[in-house]
Amino acid sequence: MDAKAKKYVDLFRSVKIASAATVDEKGHPRTRIVNVMLADDSGMYLVASKGKPFYKQMVETGEVALSAMCPECQSLKFLGKCRIADKEWLDRVFEENPGLNEVYPGKTRYILDAFHVYEGQGEWFDLLHHPISREAFSYGGAEPEHSGFLITEECIECGSCLETCPQQCIEAGSPYRIEWQHCLQCGACFDACPAGAVRRLHP
Amino acid sequence: MDAKAKKYVDLFRSVKIASAATVDEKGHPRTRIVNVMLADDSGMYLVASKGKPFYKQMVETGEVALSAMCPECQSLKFLGKCRIADKEWLDRVFEENPGLNEVYPGKTRYILDAFHVYEGQGEWFDLLHHPISREAFSYGGAEPEHSGFLITEECIECGSCLETCPQQCIEAGSPYRIEWQHCLQCGACFDACPAGAVRRLHP
Repeated sequence: MDAKAKKYVDLFRSVKIASAATVDEKGHPRTRIVNVMLADDSGMYLVASKGKPFYKQMVETGEVALSAMCPECQSLKFLGKCRIADKEWLDRVFEENPGLNEVYPGKTRYILDAFHVYEGQGEWFDLLHHPISREAFSYGGAEPEHSGFLITEECIECGSCLETCPQQCIEAGSPYRIEWQHCLQCGACFDACPAGAVRRLHP
Repeated sequence: MDAKAKKYVDLFRSVKIASAATVDEKGHPRTRIVNVMLADDSGMYLVASKGKPFYKQMVETGEVALSAMCPECQSLKFLGKCRIADKEWLDRVFEENPGLNEVYPGKTRYILDAFHVYEGQGEWFDLLHHPISREAFSYGGAEPEHSGFLITEECIECGSCLETCPQQCIEAGSPYRIEWQHCLQCGACFDACPAGAVRRLHP
């Protein structure tokens, strides 16, 4: 795991409270509040009890998406792959999160499994400071995902995009250039360009 | 909307910071931090800009799941249906959330649409107080969802379920009875029952 991914994985762990999203057996999105119980160079760890739809959804899809609100209006989002971890990880989770013993006392903990989120990609986003900024990260072999927009060589340098940009994050030039890290990804430039020079980077 | 649903819809709005989960075009779960911008008897309102995958996912699936962490370790989760609301709702969102003008100044707001979450069902969950408790709610014609477990007439009254229950939320009787509102839904009773008398209420 590179230093950037480590920084954000550690941030997930320090915020601790996250939302975990999964897809259920009928294809509906599902989400609930969870704790990021551990984070290290191998990824992040969650727990779920065997009786829960959340458990079944993680086992059946092998995927979980996480989002978290960090201090100062900075947020994290993430999509990763997960699998059940060895039992020793569950014990380690309880060691590092002793409050869990109040909810699952003694041996009742073994109705839980630890899930290892062993790879994935995400983004950190800061909406509080000006200019707004974002940073992509990934680990475990996942590709970082760059959503948003790109201005291509078809740009006629008319300035329509810059005029309409809520964040003024476009630099004039040949072609004009979106500062990806300061972009809301709202799509205003895409709508405004008379030359069709703005390309969507995501589906 | 009944008083119970109103209470939880208002709680989503007062917490304001929520995670919104959707399913993308490839069936992956996606989640990000959003604000619940408005809530009234007609439901909840979110915003999204036209350039975002989140926007496209809400339009294409007509669904969004929300979760939020409330004060004192109480959490909310929700699955609802959504559609784009009339433009006047976007203006109302900006009136009630004036900070949005810093991100989308002047007419740039119209790259956003307001989404009306017009029906859905969810659950409030309190993990801080003992006994833990949960309450289901729904509005707009959606059925409240009762996940968890039920002890059927096949119960042989052996007490294995009560012994293994981390929350001791099972009452002895004929049959034994799970106090649904105090249940973790962990599935320990389901695993422990030698008579197969514990039925799962969800898929």
